Amino acid sequence: MRAESLGRLFSPRSVAVIGASQKVDSAGHDYVRALREFNFEGAVYPINPRAKEIAGYRAYPSLEDTGASVDLVICCIPANNVPDVVEACGDTGVPFLHIFSGRLSETGGTEAVALEATIEASARTRGVRLLGPNGLGIYHPAGRIAFRPDLPRASGSVAFLSQSGNNAVEVVIRGSARGLRFSKVANYGNGLDLTPGELLAWLADDSETAVIGAYIEGLADGRGFYEGLKKAASRKPVFIQKAGRSEEGAIAAASHTAALAGESAIWSSMLRQAGAMEAHSQEQLLDLMVAGSLLARPQGRRIAVAGGGGGRSVQSADACASQGLTLPPLSPDVTEYVTEHAPNLANWVRNPVDQSILAGSGLSANAILAKMASSGTYDVGIANVGEEWFLGRPNAGARLRHACKRLRETIATSPIPIAIILGATELSTEWQRQLIDSVRDEFIESELAVFPTIERAAFALGRLAPQ
Amino acid sequence: MRAESLGRLFSPRSVAVIGASQKVDSAGHDYVRALREFNFEGAVYPINPRAKEIAGYRAYPSLEDTGASVDLVICCIPANNVPDVVEACGDTGVPFLHIFSGRLSETGGTEAVALEATIEASARTRGVRLLGPNGLGIYHPAGRIAFRPDLPRASGSVAFLSQSGNNAVEVVIRGSARGLRFSKVANYGNGLDLTPGELLAWLADDSETAVIGAYIEGLADGRGFYEGLKKAASRKPVFIQKAGRSEEGAIAAASHTAALAGESAIWSSMLRQAGAMEAHSQEQLLDLMVAGSLLARPQGRRIAVAGGGGGRSVQSADACASQGLTLPPLSPDVTEYVTEHAPNLANWVRNPVDQSILAGSGLSANAILAKMASSGTYDVGIANVGEEWFLGRPNAGARLRHACKRLRETIATSPIPIAIILGATELSTEWQRQLIDSVRDEFIESELAVFPTIERAAFALGRLAPQ
Repeated sequence: MRAESLGRLFSPRSVAVIGASQKVDSAGHDYVRALREFNFEGAVYPINPRAKEIAGYRAYPSLEDTGASVDLVICCIPANNVPDVVEACGDTGVPFLHIFSGRLSETGGTEAVALEATIEASARTRGVRLLGPNGLGIYHPAGRIAFRPDLPRASGSVAFLSQSGNNAVEVVIRGSARGLRFSKVANYGNGLDLTPGELLAWLADDSETAVIGAYIEGLADGRGFYEGLKKAASRKPVFIQKAGRSEEGAIAAASHTAALAGESAIWSSMLRQAGAMEAHSQEQLLDLMVAGSLLARPQGRRIAVAGGGGGRSVQSADACASQGLTLPPLSPDVTEYVTEHAPNLANWVRNPVDQSILAGSGLSANAILAKMASSGTYDVGIANVGEEWFLGRPNAGARLRHACKRLRETIATSPIPIAIILGATELSTEWQRQLIDSVRDEFIESELAVFPTIERAAFALGRLAPQ
Repeated sequence: MRAESLGRLFSPRSVAVIGASQKVDSAGHDYVRALREFNFEGAVYPINPRAKEIAGYRAYPSLEDTGASVDLVICCIPANNVPDVVEACGDTGVPFLHIFSGRLSETGGTEAVALEATIEASARTRGVRLLGPNGLGIYHPAGRIAFRPDLPRASGSVAFLSQSGNNAVEVVIRGSARGLRFSKVANYGNGLDLTPGELLAWLADDSETAVIGAYIEGLADGRGFYEGLKKAASRKPVFIQKAGRSEEGAIAAASHTAALAGESAIWSSMLRQAGAMEAHSQEQLLDLMVAGSLLARPQGRRIAVAGGGGGRSVQSADACASQGLTLPPLSPDVTEYVTEHAPNLANWVRNPVDQSILAGSGLSANAILAKMASSGTYDVGIANVGEEWFLGRPNAGARLRHACKRLRETIATSPIPIAIILGATELSTEWQRQLIDSVRDEFIESELAVFPTIERAAFALGRLAPQ
């Protein structure tokens, strides 16, 4: 473990990009442009023997020609030339080399495997730490560095590690739209030197990071991973998606990042033992990260559910029960509240609260949910928006917005965490899509946890609540 | 079974709405307006003693005052007055009465239960068939009748039955956005007279209907349901979501539609025995209906997967394997094709086909998928669009549209069914949302099956493929 020293990887004072390019549709251009567009505050050295300037930065023929002390080198040139880069990094005292270049051990080819071993040995000898190869590298918005220029500028407290590059991009883009704000993201690819275990151990101590997610296909160093995971999970919620769980998936993983995928059951028990929570899909991982990041952790498994019609209530009860969450009946103070306002509903309203039977009573599911939340009878809540009902009413937009505003107020004063169910925009008409998107955006801006289905919310809450 | 006679329920020649209203935000208005907006071709009689005209139709003080022969009466007045309506229907020879009115047995109140029994007995004596109470009734776009004015006009071959009203609306709205076109939809509520069993038996013979979905909470008549289901499932794919599976859900169901929810395991084995396929959530039900309606049924369990990066490939393999689908390696003709075009990829490209390793080779995942589809080695295919990659490239829109056009061409000539994976618009920026929505709309207009995640597609295909 050399974890104490990773700070300059995520927060370099200077970055050189070897293979920097003027061609806009290339990685060698994107890394430089991302530094420009993120307003990176340190020095940037595009390295390209045939260019004078790239993305507004002066270009240099070689690393040596910069005459500078560089904290991080990003390498985008073909794999065969990477050993020269490692040597140059060693010669100029570069502590971190991120190798974007692929076509190494993940191809399974004998020469490529040997080349990767050469790179590793050379870097070790020279004291250069490697991220990658075959990985996108770093996204650290607070440090103004990103592996794609189009990623969100906002920073937050969610760290994410991914073996796969496209998967890292998907999680950042999809997670951001759901309100995740990232501290540090690393796509480590083949994990030749810097492993997910070491990264986890370092993130355990990272004050910027409160929640950690990781997508792992396979590992070279199982013991180191377990130690790093255990350390991280003892301090922060850690969510792991282990892919390549099936034999078919393991074969696909092997051709992708040269890592041995383990058996599913062994992985699950190892993750549990280390104190991490397991996701079986990207969707589950995102749901856990949303719940872990945007909701206070539930103190128990008693859930209050309100909103939507009768069908939604029945499905909500099923979803919660299947995740081992309990649905206590309305507490006496809530029953009293209902009886006061609508005597004929007194024995009919239950948990989940069916919005449709409240019509004309002057009571709203939201008001009942607020009472339930402060009753001391529940540890966590779910609010079904039930947007399809609004879409068929006159002034649908104004009414839906009003209901969502009231819900935001309820959640703001609620002593228990409350998750919101608002569907995906599987809608045929443009105005409906825009309405639902804008309502969701308002929730997200208020830093609330929104799930597209009750089943997905129940899954995440069921994992986060104490067993 | 009196199933032979339900034609006039879905295709009435004349409709009267008792409790028709000029108040735009009321059910009594919506039913009349829906007939107007759907261009219902028969006679419409709004019944309201205090109105002269409703939604452009002349209003009548009573059913008798119309002096007409009415095929379907929709009743929106309070439950206490429903017995008079039943009587009037009997007196004027109305064959079908849809009772929207609720607050009957679903409240659990003694008087309400008794009132419902009175209504049933009276209707039976007078030969009036009842749909409901406590249900939205009929959506039959080809017959130009709908329980909400804002539902899609397009008609198709998917029938849907729902105990819950809001759930019926959700399935119609969400399903339509995914390309489902409906033949006949019925929300039967308490199912007092017309039961899901009888409706299923009738839909079995309905030439307009090719695929049937149903959302069931509980049943009064288990035997009749089984018989109707068995008949329907012997002729068409039938997908059933049984809600109220948990004890908590059964309690919620009881307070909602007065139906006894059975035990989960008994239900599952009953559905299997009847030849139906089971969904455990609305999402799964929609996915099955999309696959059943928009894809030819796979002839086996061998799947070809292509597109997306390495992470997506690994996750695809896991998802397919977990649903019992097999991933045969590339067949010799496909390997030959790859070797011809890109010798250095020959031993690296596998099934699933990782798009990211093809970069610069001149080969596309789409072209390889087309070869796989016609190789005789696979029964069904999945194409991962991998849209997040495009979003970061220059000319993202044009490139994504081009790739999707090629994919549509591949599917159009493919001898095996191919499902498309295109994510939900969990995106932060408006242009990205609009781009993905418009690409999806083009797939939907081509009547293709689109799933938001690989896991959901694999689930649906795994259920539809022969065991």
